[in-house]
Amino acid sequence: MAVGEFSFPEMSPLAGVRLSTGSAAIKSEGKEDLVVIELAAGSRISGVFTKNAFCAAPVTVARDHLQQIKGDSQEEKSYLVINSGNANACTGEQGLLDARETCAEIARKTGTQSMRVLPFSTGVIGESLPMQRILPVLPSVCDTFSESAWNAAARAVMTTDTRPKGISIQIEHEGEIITINGFAKGAGMIRPDMATMLAYVFTDARISSPLLDTLLASAVEQSFNRITVDGDTSTNDACILVATGRTVLPEVDTASGELYEKLQQAITEAHITLAQSIVTDGEGATKFITVEVNGGSSVDDCLKVAYSVAESPLVKTAFFAADPNWGRIVMAIGKAGVDSLDVSKINVYLNDVLIVESGERASNYREEDGQRVMNDEAILVKIELQRGEFSETVWTTDLSHDYVTINAEYRT
Amino acid sequence: MAVGEFSFPEMSPLAGVRLSTGSAAIKSEGKEDLVVIELAAGSRISGVFTKNAFCAAPVTVARDHLQQIKGDSQEEKSYLVINSGNANACTGEQGLLDARETCAEIARKTGTQSMRVLPFSTGVIGESLPMQRILPVLPSVCDTFSESAWNAAARAVMTTDTRPKGISIQIEHEGEIITINGFAKGAGMIRPDMATMLAYVFTDARISSPLLDTLLASAVEQSFNRITVDGDTSTNDACILVATGRTVLPEVDTASGELYEKLQQAITEAHITLAQSIVTDGEGATKFITVEVNGGSSVDDCLKVAYSVAESPLVKTAFFAADPNWGRIVMAIGKAGVDSLDVSKINVYLNDVLIVESGERASNYREEDGQRVMNDEAILVKIELQRGEFSETVWTTDLSHDYVTINAEYRT
Repeated sequence: MAVGEFSFPEMSPLAGVRLSTGSAAIKSEGKEDLVVIELAAGSRISGVFTKNAFCAAPVTVARDHLQQIKGDSQEEKSYLVINSGNANACTGEQGLLDARETCAEIARKTGTQSMRVLPFSTGVIGESLPMQRILPVLPSVCDTFSESAWNAAARAVMTTDTRPKGISIQIEHEGEIITINGFAKGAGMIRPDMATMLAYVFTDARISSPLLDTLLASAVEQSFNRITVDGDTSTNDACILVATGRTVLPEVDTASGELYEKLQQAITEAHITLAQSIVTDGEGATKFITVEVNGGSSVDDCLKVAYSVAESPLVKTAFFAADPNWGRIVMAIGKAGVDSLDVSKINVYLNDVLIVESGERASNYREEDGQRVMNDEAILVKIELQRGEFSETVWTTDLSHDYVTINAEYRT
Repeated sequence: MAVGEFSFPEMSPLAGVRLSTGSAAIKSEGKEDLVVIELAAGSRISGVFTKNAFCAAPVTVARDHLQQIKGDSQEEKSYLVINSGNANACTGEQGLLDARETCAEIARKTGTQSMRVLPFSTGVIGESLPMQRILPVLPSVCDTFSESAWNAAARAVMTTDTRPKGISIQIEHEGEIITINGFAKGAGMIRPDMATMLAYVFTDARISSPLLDTLLASAVEQSFNRITVDGDTSTNDACILVATGRTVLPEVDTASGELYEKLQQAITEAHITLAQSIVTDGEGATKFITVEVNGGSSVDDCLKVAYSVAESPLVKTAFFAADPNWGRIVMAIGKAGVDSLDVSKINVYLNDVLIVESGERASNYREEDGQRVMNDEAILVKIELQRGEFSETVWTTDLSHDYVTINAEYRT
């Protein structure tokens, strides 16, 4: 099950990016499970990776290769290679050898160096990559690059996802069009052992390498770092931002100016759309819940409260039941660990309905008003702390029978 | 559903403690929902209370009264009054007035001061106490104190609990018998809005007030602070330790000596038994899971890892499915946020079966061995970090369909 409708968008071609897909029979049913992406010479690449201490072999190798090519002249093409169906995680030394061998095979075929190939994997943990099936397929995949294979790529990286996830945005600056394309996979982190979150965003803008890092960090902070389904994070999570620089517009290298503002906004929007599409694709999800916390005395205040509410199993089951159980929301706020929280100042709204006023059940609150909101598919929980000027938003889903079914019955 | 069998024990009489129960029709079905406990003059009382910022009115009043009587000569009787069915939480100024009025009524009836009565409530949040039904019943409850009403008291405090929870231990010192009795309520914190955790432990030992505080803090740390079902904490949680001092043995006022050691051990055991009986009574629980983390470089290290595993919905659903999904355990260890965790040193056992060795699937591990363990009702997850000398244990349950059903269908 997934919340709402989501159509894969029409993807504009993006100068400097070509994609190709193939099948190495890693996933069952003969589905495509390999993607190779060719990035034009001069492309800048930024990446953020999982903070899980058990990071997978491809994360280690991708981070290492990215480090090596960061400073160089980037006058050669570079490549991203992604496989689904096997995470190459908890695979020890063999896992690192396999990730490096995958890169080396693409480098051989395309005539570049291994360090210009970044590997990514998603799928089951603890099994070695089937290299004997992957290696023979890679050369032919590298023979069929196309500017238009976005949808195929978004499908090939899917594991438990029920739908491919993409975004295509165009902005205009001084008569020139700049394109921002992206795709992602992940089914609400509800099965991180099968559903690592991977996201790739590309633009033909020309952006300096340091600024690209800043843009990515900021966009991830406002998108992938603001979604939660069950608080679990995967061994393989990665988010990549590429600027091919194929526009005729000048390089953007400072965080100011009109072009920077437009780019910053569009890149962030692309990340938020992809992050939300991952949340709404949680197989157990029946509700899309936005938790907005206002009036915190710091970002940390707001996030503590927002995550405490968004990750409380009691709050989440109440949403599944469409039960306006304000006591559970209040309890989750209270246990968030915010110092000297004055509960008598707190207001809570469900959409436009005030349910808690000054820390108590709102005097005008009627259960039927709460019920009306809870029947919606998308619900805003707005919490006013009234102790400062900060505000943060996180997105999550409910906790349903399907969540337990999917996660309990997987593998058995 | 609850895990395993649990019989309410034979409770030895305990000099200085008399109990009485009654019904004020707060709970449905005319069950008893009031308990008053009379403590002999000279009793010392220690308490620890919820850290939830939304603490209930009785918590505020009990804390306040305890503070007032801590320093005095304690030459009068004191009382505990508990109601179930209504938490008197998020009830504002009226809630405080109601809690104080309850104490005052008992003080009037028994001829003591209000500050010598500590109030406790558990039940629904956000509704005012039905004082018009409670006040008339209190005097008659205070007419029927008995040394033997332990089981009745344990039943009267139940809300969603499926069984009363008690413990009775006797230790011998220099030919004298010392008794430690306790009872508790709470159904695995799976419905904190209905299932506050309350625990009361009593002994006839004579213990100085400062040492009693130390003993309680230590016992709670090793028991109630080591259980988790869903990470949520209630507005009303309280744990009370009473020493009536009716023994002929001398007062214990330093944390040393044979009598102290015996008392410390028995009081801790009583708390652990009560805490575990709460975990196993989680209505959704089908498994009792012990997570033991060894070799941490600090208590914090161990607890971070233990809670990350014990509270991971993915780990908990795997236990419900009796699925030896070691990838999920590894992922939960990795995301625990322990600094510089060297995953290549980590071993994980399910009971006696080594499943993860040096951060990878153990070479000798066979799925059927893991499966054999997972079919048990009580399972030990042992995690060796191999980075220090610290070790901690927490207890939890699985996450089942019943958890969602109970929590989603309550109130609807």
